[in-house]
Amino acid sequence: MSVEVIAIGGYEEVGRNMTAVKVGEDVIIFDMGIHLDRISIHEDTDIDRMHSLDLIERGVIPDDTLMKDVDGKVKGIVFSHGHLDHIGAVAKLAHRYDAPLIGTPYTAALIQKQINGERKFKVNNPIKTLNPGGKMKLSEDITLEFVQSTHSIPQAVFPVLHTPEGIIVYALDFKFDNHQKVSPPPDYRRLKELGRKGVLALIVESTNIKDTNEVKTYSERIARNILEDLMRGPLYEKTGMIVTTFSSHVERVQTIADIAKKSHREILFLGRSMERFCGIAESQGILKLPKNSSIYGSPKAVNKALMKAEDNREKYLLVTTGHQGEPDALLPRIANGKTPFNIKRGDNVIISAPIIPNPTNAANRHIMERRLKASGARIYANAHVSGHAGREDHRDFIRMLKPQHIIPAHGDLSMLSAYGELAEEEGYRIGNNVHILRNAQAQVFNG
Amino acid sequence: MSVEVIAIGGYEEVGRNMTAVKVGEDVIIFDMGIHLDRISIHEDTDIDRMHSLDLIERGVIPDDTLMKDVDGKVKGIVFSHGHLDHIGAVAKLAHRYDAPLIGTPYTAALIQKQINGERKFKVNNPIKTLNPGGKMKLSEDITLEFVQSTHSIPQAVFPVLHTPEGIIVYALDFKFDNHQKVSPPPDYRRLKELGRKGVLALIVESTNIKDTNEVKTYSERIARNILEDLMRGPLYEKTGMIVTTFSSHVERVQTIADIAKKSHREILFLGRSMERFCGIAESQGILKLPKNSSIYGSPKAVNKALMKAEDNREKYLLVTTGHQGEPDALLPRIANGKTPFNIKRGDNVIISAPIIPNPTNAANRHIMERRLKASGARIYANAHVSGHAGREDHRDFIRMLKPQHIIPAHGDLSMLSAYGELAEEEGYRIGNNVHILRNAQAQVFNG
Amino acid sequence: MSVEVIAIGGYEEVGRNMTAVKVGEDVIIFDMGIHLDRISIHEDTDIDRMHSLDLIERGVIPDDTLMKDVDGKVKGIVFSHGHLDHIGAVAKLAHRYDAPLIGTPYTAALIQKQINGERKFKVNNPIKTLNPGGKMKLSEDITLEFVQSTHSIPQAVFPVLHTPEGIIVYALDFKFDNHQKVSPPPDYRRLKELGRKGVLALIVESTNIKDTNEVKTYSERIARNILEDLMRGPLYEKTGMIVTTFSSHVERVQTIADIAKKSHREILFLGRSMERFCGIAESQGILKLPKNSSIYGSPKAVNKALMKAEDNREKYLLVTTGHQGEPDALLPRIANGKTPFNIKRGDNVIISAPIIPNPTNAANRHIMERRLKASGARIYANAHVSGHAGREDHRDFIRMLKPQHIIPAHGDLSMLSAYGELAEEEGYRIGNNVHILRNAQAQVFNG
Amino acid sequence: MSVEVIAIGGYEEVGRNMTAVKVGEDVIIFDMGIHLDRISIHEDTDIDRMHSLDLIERGVIPDDTLMKDVDGKVKGIVFSHGHLDHIGAVAKLAHRYDAPLIGTPYTAALIQKQINGERKFKVNNPIKTLNPGGKMKLSEDITLEFVQSTHSIPQAVFPVLHTPEGIIVYALDFKFDNHQKVSPPPDYRRLKELGRKGVLALIVESTNIKDTNEVKTYSERIARNILEDLMRGPLYEKTGMIVTTFSSHVERVQTIADIAKKSHREILFLGRSMERFCGIAESQGILKLPKNSSIYGSPKAVNKALMKAEDNREKYLLVTTGHQGEPDALLPRIANGKTPFNIKRGDNVIISAPIIPNPTNAANRHIMERRLKASGARIYANAHVSGHAGREDHRDFIRMLKPQHIIPAHGDLSMLSAYGELAEEEGYRIGNNVHILRNAQAQVFNG
Repeated sequence: MSVEVIAIGGYEEVGRNMTAVKVGEDVIIFDMGIHLDRISIHEDTDIDRMHSLDLIERGVIPDDTLMKDVDGKVKGIVFSHGHLDHIGAVAKLAHRYDAPLIGTPYTAALIQKQINGERKFKVNNPIKTLNPGGKMKLSEDITLEFVQSTHSIPQAVFPVLHTPEGIIVYALDFKFDNHQKVSPPPDYRRLKELGRKGVLALIVESTNIKDTNEVKTYSERIARNILEDLMRGPLYEKTGMIVTTFSSHVERVQTIADIAKKSHREILFLGRSMERFCGIAESQGILKLPKNSSIYGSPKAVNKALMKAEDNREKYLLVTTGHQGEPDALLPRIANGKTPFNIKRGDNVIISAPIIPNPTNAANRHIMERRLKASGARIYANAHVSGHAGREDHRDFIRMLKPQHIIPAHGDLSMLSAYGELAEEEGYRIGNNVHILRNAQAQVFNG
Repeated sequence: MSVEVIAIGGYEEVGRNMTAVKVGEDVIIFDMGIHLDRISIHEDTDIDRMHSLDLIERGVIPDDTLMKDVDGKVKGIVFSHGHLDHIGAVAKLAHRYDAPLIGTPYTAALIQKQINGERKFKVNNPIKTLNPGGKMKLSEDITLEFVQSTHSIPQAVFPVLHTPEGIIVYALDFKFDNHQKVSPPPDYRRLKELGRKGVLALIVESTNIKDTNEVKTYSERIARNILEDLMRGPLYEKTGMIVTTFSSHVERVQTIADIAKKSHREILFLGRSMERFCGIAESQGILKLPKNSSIYGSPKAVNKALMKAEDNREKYLLVTTGHQGEPDALLPRIANGKTPFNIKRGDNVIISAPIIPNPTNAANRHIMERRLKASGARIYANAHVSGHAGREDHRDFIRMLKPQHIIPAHGDLSMLSAYGELAEEEGYRIGNNVHILRNAQAQVFNG
Repeated sequence: MSVEVIAIGGYEEVGRNMTAVKVGEDVIIFDMGIHLDRISIHEDTDIDRMHSLDLIERGVIPDDTLMKDVDGKVKGIVFSHGHLDHIGAVAKLAHRYDAPLIGTPYTAALIQKQINGERKFKVNNPIKTLNPGGKMKLSEDITLEFVQSTHSIPQAVFPVLHTPEGIIVYALDFKFDNHQKVSPPPDYRRLKELGRKGVLALIVESTNIKDTNEVKTYSERIARNILEDLMRGPLYEKTGMIVTTFSSHVERVQTIADIAKKSHREILFLGRSMERFCGIAESQGILKLPKNSSIYGSPKAVNKALMKAEDNREKYLLVTTGHQGEPDALLPRIANGKTPFNIKRGDNVIISAPIIPNPTNAANRHIMERRLKASGARIYANAHVSGHAGREDHRDFIRMLKPQHIIPAHGDLSMLSAYGELAEEEGYRIGNNVHILRNAQAQVFNG
Repeated sequence: MSVEVIAIGGYEEVGRNMTAVKVGEDVIIFDMGIHLDRISIHEDTDIDRMHSLDLIERGVIPDDTLMKDVDGKVKGIVFSHGHLDHIGAVAKLAHRYDAPLIGTPYTAALIQKQINGERKFKVNNPIKTLNPGGKMKLSEDITLEFVQSTHSIPQAVFPVLHTPEGIIVYALDFKFDNHQKVSPPPDYRRLKELGRKGVLALIVESTNIKDTNEVKTYSERIARNILEDLMRGPLYEKTGMIVTTFSSHVERVQTIADIAKKSHREILFLGRSMERFCGIAESQGILKLPKNSSIYGSPKAVNKALMKAEDNREKYLLVTTGHQGEPDALLPRIANGKTPFNIKRGDNVIISAPIIPNPTNAANRHIMERRLKASGARIYANAHVSGHAGREDHRDFIRMLKPQHIIPAHGDLSMLSAYGELAEEEGYRIGNNVHILRNAQAQVFNG
């Protein structure tokens, strides 16, 4: 029985992840993501209403047209976690496959939202949930296991396939964080056990591999400590206060809420995506917001909340979207004077997010920060830790799993290559047992 | 009789240059420029219709309100050359002064255009022209001399004031280029002569001083050689061909025309500012366009020309605006599919301009280049030399003039400081005879 | 009574700090440091045996020859903390002044060591100690106060002069760290009190002001958390383990010891400067080393300890000098195979120090790391936080002290200028109440 | 008959190039270079006296031990040009093969020098010369052709193998320079002809591919123009004058001589490698030095020449080795005061070479420049153009040759990958017809 790993998306870019694994006649698909950067290149891209083929041509979603030549039956579409570069294309692509969509409960709820928002296609695939630590039989030969992982969104897992030819581990995206409050640490014990049983192939993210600063990615404990030190002052000043972070980073949102709840300020979570990610997290009992807090998602509700805050700015903490300065998001609109809340001299703005590297983000953030400063705000911009494994984390990971073959993913060629060089330091060899694939290429392992 | 140099604009930024020199009771103003970057920070800035005070508040034009406290009479407003960061505020500020506007003929024509376009103010100051090498008495005590300089626009000069207390040299902006075709080399002989006579103060640009790569700024001969090598191939391919450069860089435009005229291609100069700068240059006999060339400025004329070129792309060379990727300029609009000319596989695009350092330009250029490439264009992006003096040119300049005092200008504090450190290597001392001013500060020299 | 601040060293470089403050006829000197980088430029520089004037000419120590023209009497030489760029020139310069040397007990002990090592001059100035929080009358008019600060060495203080004309604060070097274990937090209460009383002038470091990454410098709690996460794995592997950090960073050394003491490994602190700084710290009760630890300083003792460790590498943790890769320090010598301890495959090396920015350090570190890796070591290089205040810490500091005048120090012109721009954001103005001085320039405040 | 390309050295680094091509039973080897950087990692590396296996272990020379498993007979060892990273290992490796060494006359003379200097091995392989444009039968099936190329050393060629399975082109190292004086332009006509005949495989350098600044590498005409502008001033000042450049860059040396010969200065070419490369070039009629010039290579002769120059510095132009600041080379030794020629205030130093990117070079250059400046020299450091093809040159090259397969070489993985991505823009696909090899891997093409 041969095993084949088919690179569909995310092997030439950071984004639009999708990989298929064929074991004998059974095919399992991992992730169906979008490539957010590509949207801005064509100004008229309206994702919700566009057809898959147009989006494929523009490089926005994975090009899965090659799947029609794959001789096999798709038994499951498995999602590692709920970020858009992993689930964002589900409504465009899933309906072509007669197979269930499988994710942890939080991921599954986000997939459901994605499908509900779709305007072009009807997606009727059943959605199944599997808890971290759980197993599910996908076919006669294949059993799926979700091994607990950590990332920058709750309920991220390593999906693992147990096959007659060995174990296949899909490790997009993860970090090794032993200090999150919302999520337990990664299940190192199980990873080592899998390593002893025999891992045939590891498909693994390479997003952070070139970052020479963060050899082992800092834990969320670091982010908590930084935010505690940064927020203490502003919380007790009699001025306005805004924190912006990733809506989906529920761990971080929890941290911000925990620090602020001891103060007298009422916490307002504002913005559509803030409502989406935090609302679901709260309803599932993952996020525990304090009493003095509310979430507002609709433009109307947001405006009303901002009006309230404008007049009593020292009484509120605004937690908003817009950390990249994207012109339509909330914080940039506040900075541009387009909301009822006007920045005044002395207001404090904490940006708990990096600039996602891309010239447009750099320009948007620059303009937003200049506007905020011009209105008199004080900006604290360095309150973040990454959600992706660093170089030395990856080394540890390889040592735990001892895979026969490694396929780096979720990166451009320079990232996949850098991962390959790390693997060579651990005794592997590019071209022999480390395989660098381009989108639409496949690697066959003969069992 | 005391001499006072008053920093009005351009001492905390690259842009909106304006300096006043007071000699006894007479005041001479140098330049009235705008700060282009600042316009984009406030989205609703409509320069032509806005009042000076609003533009001052937004940092777009120099804040000359301090001039009302200067006890003296303005005898002349002198323009060094025709770039917008030196003349762009003339229509907003000049009418407040009862004094003539003085420039070389090319500069004067551009000032006239600027005034004609103004919608808010009436500007009735007389415009006087002075040729490079010429002199003009501005008051009993002060004579203005224009010493030939070189820059990236024709007829740039060093305006020099001969005063009873010594000579004052205003050196914004210049390079030492001995190989331009449109402009003669700088008048080194006269500069050295001034040095021997005794220069009291040198007010000097510092724009390029931090560039450690270009110790002596390369001459336009280098740009010619590079463009010759780059253009040769594309000129004779049967595909579309576009060159974009600064409209005001008439020397460069001449070079492009000279190289292309030997080919069979008809040259189309396209875009409003291309028409403005090149049209005047041609009418004044500065720019000599070949027979097989035309300039189109109005949107309608440009569109018609593009339609013609679309069908016979191998027969035309388009010379366009838009090298920074500014969304409303021509090349970015072509890249975005918004004109009758569609980029096709194999078309060649030569960008004869650097990215002017600024996150918005970086983002715009990035998006434009990605779109051009996505349509199949081949881009050549490294065909430029700077128009500003390099570190070692400045050293030579100091040695020629041997000024008693130096006031670096046209830069942020880090540039003015870097100039100061260079001057210290030449025996000066910051705080003693090198004076780093902030906007609105003045330096007095007691004669 | 006029007050004069005289810049002697550290106003054109990071290093060789020295400032004099003249109040009426009394002069107080702050710090007498060396400039370590300058030593390597002249290969034959032997500090211990060279004369002050030679060292001044080479830029290694501050040029205090201008002090002979200062009309006043030196009443005290005050040291802010024990780093070499603040005390390293004491043995070369102090003997010229008839005044006591004043520091906290830890600083005083280091000064004593410095004087003991001198081969050229006899230094007989009395050494006086003053505890953080203490006061000492220096003359009729001047009282010195040591306000508790934090930095990367124990017992760093803000020396404060109470004068008839107002308070003068000397703030080199500091960070705001509320989470050190060896040192209490800065005395914010007292700083604000001084601000209310009226600070005439603040002399303040600018070393980190250009670092746009660290807006508020991370606390040592962050370093502890990082080191805990990094060291946990290596401590329990059966391989060699080395940590290198600044010998004088007693807080960090304490952290390393605290983490390691729970393991079975014996801790060996190795290297001459490790013995100097940690030995004194231990004898003064500042550093509390666990039982299973020893310090070895002499080459012989170090070698013996390394021999022991070579054979039972899994039983020891080596804490060494050499984090910059300086060829004669211990870790680079180990890396180069010149000690009895040979790096073996699997050994772990943790570098708890940044590359101090300088091309020589970059080259040395690069070579050291390549050698360590070539021998099979695994390197963890990102376990550090800075000891210098960040941009936003400085903003807080200015708001606490509200000084009438600010004089940035301990930086090159670009750093002093960047500090000046920060102060301008807080309402100050360079040239008016922010004074950028060059070495040997003075600023007079008329009381 | 199958064709196999075997990567021996230079596929994981810039340096120690060596590639074997097996056609049926015949093997042709291209280049035997050293890796200069690796020497400094082990301080005790004495190349001339060390055994191949030690040098292989240290990564200094290619690991050709795999050749014993290659089932075939070596018919020729072909050298593309005379740089050390292409010929430097000849004396260590060639004796193991019973095959002639083949190069152009200039390359052959340099190989002979290399062999003469060897202390460990006897190398008796016959040396054969082949002129650019010439052909030589290497076996029944294989004919070698040397196609004229340009690089930064004279007589660089593209060695081409004509085989029954198609043409194989070896393109290390080259640029497309139409304006050299010492060398004719590349033979574009022949390259296109080869493309039409059918190129099976292109083995091609990737050294400059990541340089986004130089899309088409500037020609030596640019370097001439720059040097003319830079040297004019210093030549006629009454001060010392030094130019340093690559000894092997005979074209550049010729340029320097041509510019200087019109002045009154006598030109002294100084340094051992200057004598080696220029001496041979002169004896072969490639370099034409003016009458008022001499070459001195031995330390004694150099010292004597320097003594002469010391006393009449305005009468000489010194052209020296040492542009990287390597401590033992001439210019760094002058800078460090270790020669009879002492830098005086006003002396001019022109560095016509880039910093070869590597932390040690950066540190050495930094120290050398600081020393030169400290002694009063004025440095001009930006007088160079690269000798390696840029990104757009490579695109042109691919379009000329239209090879079936491409194997990028002479780079680390990131460079080979970047080349691969360029090839993909031209319709190739990594993994299909672009092959990224690691040292010791092979690619087979079945004819």
